[in-house]
Amino acid sequence: MITVSIVNVTSYTGLELLRLLAGHPEFEVTSVTARSSAGQRLDAVFPQFAAGRNQNGAHPGHLLITEKAARTDLAFVCLPHAAAAATVVELLAQGIKVVDLSADFRLHDVATYEQWYQHTHPAPALLETAVYGLSERYRARIAGTSLVANPGCHSSTAILALLPLLAAGLVKPDIIVNTLTGISGAGRGLKLSSLFCEQDEDTSAYSLDGHRHLPEMVQELEAAARDGGHPVEGGLRLTFVPHVLPMSRGLLATCYAERKASSLSIEEIRAVYADYYANEPFIRVIDTAPHTRWTTGTNLCLIYPTLDQRTGRVMVVSCLDNLVKGAAGAAVQNANLVMGLPETTGLPTMALVP
Amino acid sequence: MITVSIVNVTSYTGLELLRLLAGHPEFEVTSVTARSSAGQRLDAVFPQFAAGRNQNGAHPGHLLITEKAARTDLAFVCLPHAAAAATVVELLAQGIKVVDLSADFRLHDVATYEQWYQHTHPAPALLETAVYGLSERYRARIAGTSLVANPGCHSSTAILALLPLLAAGLVKPDIIVNTLTGISGAGRGLKLSSLFCEQDEDTSAYSLDGHRHLPEMVQELEAAARDGGHPVEGGLRLTFVPHVLPMSRGLLATCYAERKASSLSIEEIRAVYADYYANEPFIRVIDTAPHTRWTTGTNLCLIYPTLDQRTGRVMVVSCLDNLVKGAAGAAVQNANLVMGLPETTGLPTMALVP
Amino acid sequence: MITVSIVNVTSYTGLELLRLLAGHPEFEVTSVTARSSAGQRLDAVFPQFAAGRNQNGAHPGHLLITEKAARTDLAFVCLPHAAAAATVVELLAQGIKVVDLSADFRLHDVATYEQWYQHTHPAPALLETAVYGLSERYRARIAGTSLVANPGCHSSTAILALLPLLAAGLVKPDIIVNTLTGISGAGRGLKLSSLFCEQDEDTSAYSLDGHRHLPEMVQELEAAARDGGHPVEGGLRLTFVPHVLPMSRGLLATCYAERKASSLSIEEIRAVYADYYANEPFIRVIDTAPHTRWTTGTNLCLIYPTLDQRTGRVMVVSCLDNLVKGAAGAAVQNANLVMGLPETTGLPTMALVP
Amino acid sequence: MITVSIVNVTSYTGLELLRLLAGHPEFEVTSVTARSSAGQRLDAVFPQFAAGRNQNGAHPGHLLITEKAARTDLAFVCLPHAAAAATVVELLAQGIKVVDLSADFRLHDVATYEQWYQHTHPAPALLETAVYGLSERYRARIAGTSLVANPGCHSSTAILALLPLLAAGLVKPDIIVNTLTGISGAGRGLKLSSLFCEQDEDTSAYSLDGHRHLPEMVQELEAAARDGGHPVEGGLRLTFVPHVLPMSRGLLATCYAERKASSLSIEEIRAVYADYYANEPFIRVIDTAPHTRWTTGTNLCLIYPTLDQRTGRVMVVSCLDNLVKGAAGAAVQNANLVMGLPETTGLPTMALVP
Repeated sequence: MITVSIVNVTSYTGLELLRLLAGHPEFEVTSVTARSSAGQRLDAVFPQFAAGRNQNGAHPGHLLITEKAARTDLAFVCLPHAAAAATVVELLAQGIKVVDLSADFRLHDVATYEQWYQHTHPAPALLETAVYGLSERYRARIAGTSLVANPGCHSSTAILALLPLLAAGLVKPDIIVNTLTGISGAGRGLKLSSLFCEQDEDTSAYSLDGHRHLPEMVQELEAAARDGGHPVEGGLRLTFVPHVLPMSRGLLATCYAERKASSLSIEEIRAVYADYYANEPFIRVIDTAPHTRWTTGTNLCLIYPTLDQRTGRVMVVSCLDNLVKGAAGAAVQNANLVMGLPETTGLPTMALVP
Repeated sequence: MITVSIVNVTSYTGLELLRLLAGHPEFEVTSVTARSSAGQRLDAVFPQFAAGRNQNGAHPGHLLITEKAARTDLAFVCLPHAAAAATVVELLAQGIKVVDLSADFRLHDVATYEQWYQHTHPAPALLETAVYGLSERYRARIAGTSLVANPGCHSSTAILALLPLLAAGLVKPDIIVNTLTGISGAGRGLKLSSLFCEQDEDTSAYSLDGHRHLPEMVQELEAAARDGGHPVEGGLRLTFVPHVLPMSRGLLATCYAERKASSLSIEEIRAVYADYYANEPFIRVIDTAPHTRWTTGTNLCLIYPTLDQRTGRVMVVSCLDNLVKGAAGAAVQNANLVMGLPETTGLPTMALVP
Repeated sequence: MITVSIVNVTSYTGLELLRLLAGHPEFEVTSVTARSSAGQRLDAVFPQFAAGRNQNGAHPGHLLITEKAARTDLAFVCLPHAAAAATVVELLAQGIKVVDLSADFRLHDVATYEQWYQHTHPAPALLETAVYGLSERYRARIAGTSLVANPGCHSSTAILALLPLLAAGLVKPDIIVNTLTGISGAGRGLKLSSLFCEQDEDTSAYSLDGHRHLPEMVQELEAAARDGGHPVEGGLRLTFVPHVLPMSRGLLATCYAERKASSLSIEEIRAVYADYYANEPFIRVIDTAPHTRWTTGTNLCLIYPTLDQRTGRVMVVSCLDNLVKGAAGAAVQNANLVMGLPETTGLPTMALVP
Repeated sequence: MITVSIVNVTSYTGLELLRLLAGHPEFEVTSVTARSSAGQRLDAVFPQFAAGRNQNGAHPGHLLITEKAARTDLAFVCLPHAAAAATVVELLAQGIKVVDLSADFRLHDVATYEQWYQHTHPAPALLETAVYGLSERYRARIAGTSLVANPGCHSSTAILALLPLLAAGLVKPDIIVNTLTGISGAGRGLKLSSLFCEQDEDTSAYSLDGHRHLPEMVQELEAAARDGGHPVEGGLRLTFVPHVLPMSRGLLATCYAERKASSLSIEEIRAVYADYYANEPFIRVIDTAPHTRWTTGTNLCLIYPTLDQRTGRVMVVSCLDNLVKGAAGAAVQNANLVMGLPETTGLPTMALVP
């Protein structure tokens, strides 16, 4: 078995990693950390793990929560940004491979990072070696790295929706990304806006002054355009507005773009998507508007590209489970690549419906 | 007291009219209809009305549900389109003033109606006399008509969000309207997609091939531009994509447009909105992203106009309670105007939070 | 106008008082307090109040939040227990009448209070003058007091469900009260268990070792039995288990009791209830299982008494909106009595459905 | 591989079987039926299955929905009662083993069945051979039968909660079972009461005149008492009241009973439970009140037995996922036994949280 640790296991992504890894045939969680619960057994904090064994016969509830991760082959880091980078540096120094779920190593440009995250990057040198963990784009490089920067959930959803258009140079550089997200994306911290009574029966747009997943989207979509031979002159003019909904999981992006050629038909667009994602195990190009619930608990991303018949505008709707393909599932997919396993190992594709 | 009837009282808009009218000092509901429940008292169908009196001292639960509306001063028609028009014709013939909550008299152009609703309009002559029931635009004409066409809920939200921009000619004719709606907008009919287990913890875009509230938006925004002296050459190129969320009430529109002049600042935009809606009792221009819950149960529409700082795109977020300002509340507002009462009579502005 | 203050207006009960009082024709809110927001205007903390006027023409959003309440005729105190008592003492000393929504003056017996609340009572002398604010029981005494102890929400629901049985001496002293509550009952404080993602799609029983609303129930049910001439020998053996559900508002009690006489029929039971509550404006005895939603936003309590046909056990289901009849609405009802107004003034009875 | 069919795959239990069986290493779904969708491929009805493969490499979406089940080793029947029995007879006649998820073969006594289900039993002879599918009780007999009657969801939850008490003769024969259930238990049929807007933000008790899972509970608890050497004289006097909550999955039972001996302590009760379920892979006796969410997607049943300290009443809270341990998961557990596989094969124990 390959040993792995989960750093900050009491976060929602940490918990989701526990669930996914319990069904993984090659990874064994041998270390879990959480500052506030250090010294307790997992089943003291999460009574649902009491007395249980996972499919591997292990008792996840018996794991002792520590403050620092023990030595393992690979570590999943679920800390907030800034805190994450410091820990990543320590882990790498011990020869531990890392999948970092924070934002600390996603942006290649230090200045952009510091502008959006408002603090000095703690380990800028690592930005060179870190690989952006979108397996569908960087499969080979991920397999050869020791540091994967797992993408943001809004970013994954939007980038996967738009990659084929940018790579093929089919749309103008003016793009709008409108996302809808469940509340688990806000994490497990105590915030007034995360209370049940503040979010129930409510929706709102947020971060209209700029959301931190925006620079990732721009970086990756511009790179895809460049790699596809259709570089975006003057940079992508992308507007991104997220909205929060009264549900725990799920992320849906509705993307709007203008065709370069007004002759581009729905059929051609769908063919481009079908072709681009033909061999992807977790991307499903479908011919109807997707529902987030069709992905709950799975590592799937569903994509529906279409045209507004009246205006000729291109519209792409994509969705995924923000805690799986948008976080912990993508992390396992990346870890599989890093450790030389089949990319799909241990990742569910049958959703929990209803 | 002015007597009113509610046609199809067992719909969600019918129920909401009952609630609002119970607190209205001038209107008395003396007739309620519902085909399937005809012959029963209201409190047999809705046990919550048992033994109750409303603020007027009346017992709404004692009303007998009939198949046809009795003679009243005014009727609220909550039937589906097509069925509505036939009933409206009968009511008008008896000299009863009508606020029609269906789509049958919203569009001025018969051909557009027949294209979008796929059936022959039953009373095209009335399209001349019907007034589009957006009080903020047509106050005076509503006061003088006997037939008000109450707007669609998505339409009200988007039109109110965009009116100041179009009237002042500040944006290009390319507009995207992205809406989020609670499920009550789908009505009380038995549809698989309206089941709790199909909508809970789920979101999706729908009507990507064209939603029927689109032609209303185009008609009214083009009219506003024309009336403001800034007619839209070649027509408005508007893309509208609605999404459904796991909540009962609430409708939020996020609208995207391009400035004509890149010098147009946030401050100027806000000043235009503040000015345009300065005397409106139910429109509140606020300086933060609004939450649908801030309008629950009220006749308010909250509007937040802003700019995407990076791209200069104009973004306007607006929201309302789809069953109140988006339906029954707007209908009462219109009925107040029709009957010569102060426009705000009986309409709540304090939201139920949480 | 009668002036009133709301102490701790940023709590959920404080917000609900604002909503109810905006529609009240005799009370005017002239002072609001909140420690953490002192110095801000209400609409700075709650943007939904921006620019609004209530039915009285007042602008509730313009009120300045202060740390101490200004002098008014009456004060609603929405502080947590212990903190409440200290403030109540100060207010009474200024000749201000008080409706206290905390638990501090509900129990007549200091020892019982100190056992359940685990601290020394700060003003035991006031326990003599305070009246338990269940208007249906203590109408006359409330009208003559300057300190009303508003009941707990579970307590109101259970006591109203069981009063007629105890007062008539129809059941044995063994009673089980099983309640289901929305999450707003937990307040607006930052607790992990109040997060959306912790409560959504979940239910659990809580306080199995004893909930603080239990001694109120026992006190009031024993008093009702005594006043009805059927005192409970040896005290009531009452088990109370609350459960929390994924909804914001609503409280439903299912109560189980054993008949003294096996000849007691459903018809007799219903007659006892109909008689007991015949003149109550807010209590509706209905003949079907009630839904919490039928009370949302209203001051109603719905009660359905019945028998388990197989076992002869008496079952009574009652429900109300925990923030209205379970808190702020009952407080207004009490304040109406204290100030000599008709008891129903300003209290809605038409629910927000859906 | 062992071939299995799912009869009425478009029900919620049918869908859940598809999910569970996709991860099962020994069962292969080779036939699915649904009257209304016959002739279509699964992915035409459920777009989420498009292009997907499950862990076995099979494409569940490619299965053709038929009206009659093809020949397989075992069939899961997800039809409503009465319809189920007729199909079961046909399947058994072809030598196919059956796990029936309906109520048709749960009750041993035909008269009781006909009284509660109000129609003549279509195959009373089979009541002799059918085994009540509670693996924890009838493991050996299930392994030897060709017809398993899968328990009702309320029944499983309550029976598992109370078995140890009855088997050990520790409580009096007066028991109250109060359950809370998510809405998926009502099935996927079109009913007004199953609409999102009718269930959202609402709770109510139902079936106060008698719920059909009651006779199962009585049958099985009396049998457990008899088998344990503590037969219930005069029969069990059990009152059962279910409540429905605004959530899709989850079932929680709060059970109330009276000790026979007032000396029975919490410690003794917990020891009895720990002992009774010591070797059960899916039952976890925990020492805190369980949450339904801790079981979401799993085959677990969590049980918390305790005492009301004030009254000495025994209280047992148990919960499970009504679609898994309460239906499809228990069915797979039973199928594993019938086919001679390890009982836990393919059944998840790590919940989806949040």
